Amino acid sequence: MPKKEIRVLGIDDAPFDKFNDKKTLIIGTFFRGGSFIDGVLSTEVTVDGNDSTKKIIELIKKSKFKPQLQAIMLDGIALGGFNVVDIVQINRETGIPVIVVMRDYPDFEKIEKALIKLNKKEKIKLLKKAGEIHKAGNIFIQICGIDLEKAEAIIKITCTRSFIPEPIRVAHIIASGLHFGESRGKA
Amino acid sequence: MPKKEIRVLGIDDAPFDKFNDKKTLIIGTFFRGGSFIDGVLSTEVTVDGNDSTKKIIELIKKSKFKPQLQAIMLDGIALGGFNVVDIVQINRETGIPVIVVMRDYPDFEKIEKALIKLNKKEKIKLLKKAGEIHKAGNIFIQICGIDLEKAEAIIKITCTRSFIPEPIRVAHIIASGLHFGESRGKA
Repeated sequence: MPKKEIRVLGIDDAPFDKFNDKKTLIIGTFFRGGSFIDGVLSTEVTVDGNDSTKKIIELIKKSKFKPQLQAIMLDGIALGGFNVVDIVQINRETGIPVIVVMRDYPDFEKIEKALIKLNKKEKIKLLKKAGEIHKAGNIFIQICGIDLEKAEAIIKITCTRSFIPEPIRVAHIIASGLHFGESRGKA
Repeated sequence: MPKKEIRVLGIDDAPFDKFNDKKTLIIGTFFRGGSFIDGVLSTEVTVDGNDSTKKIIELIKKSKFKPQLQAIMLDGIALGGFNVVDIVQINRETGIPVIVVMRDYPDFEKIEKALIKLNKKEKIKLLKKAGEIHKAGNIFIQICGIDLEKAEAIIKITCTRSFIPEPIRVAHIIASGLHFGESRGKA
């Protein structure tokens, strides 16, 4: 079972103006379990684009923390609007387990309708590729490269301040604080 | 004496290219003592300019955390190169104590020479206005609006991960991660 000081990366995107912004900021925070932050990564992805998988893989591959990294957590399966992440590819190319964290059970029907309307039907495949949705504590998760028991243990270790894992909560606070000038809560 | 969960704001600037950058990013992190991050602020100041005092006062005045804020910590008396902060004015206009944190005892002779060379002799007054330098643990501090004993107690509470107070250590990690794409250590 994972140790309390397990190194986890949490990734979230900054808010953006869907009518004007072509890119949005991505923040990654390295945490020791649920206790403290060790490092911060940043990059940009195209709003509603296709580059989030590639950008996340690049960030991790060039990071000095990669050798110690035990899990990558994403705040939802998509960054920058409908820039859907391929978690199977991230796991395959980095060798690190991926856990997608969701506050609510996703409304797939609504998402599929939106993707069809945006002429991005091919992304529905990526959503399905992320696999089964599991309940873990007060949240929902999708996993790749890790078994459910171990993923649940990591969620438990990292949820020290709220029902959202610390690496995700803090990535959200930073991304939001950069965009608005002051962070706004959802976690 | 201050409580363990005392709310403290730590402020640091991002690295910048002194030949090309006109502005640099400023990050503020709200912490509960030395334990966890509650919020993030961001703004920009002019490299070697005169706006850092005004920008910090604005950030704090508009923040939702202001009513709970017990101390403002600065990573050094200047942000963005020689944009020297007037800690007396910050304390007067916000009503909140200010603590300047320094890793080493400053070399005033060298700083004064640099300021004279840059034709910014008037900033020497601001440096002197920040008052006496005290040793607190492994670091040095200047204080305004707070007595030394209380300032030392806050330093002790917030230095949970290193000899640098957490709000400053994390502001540095974030600012550096935003600038370089990955944070680089000094704390």
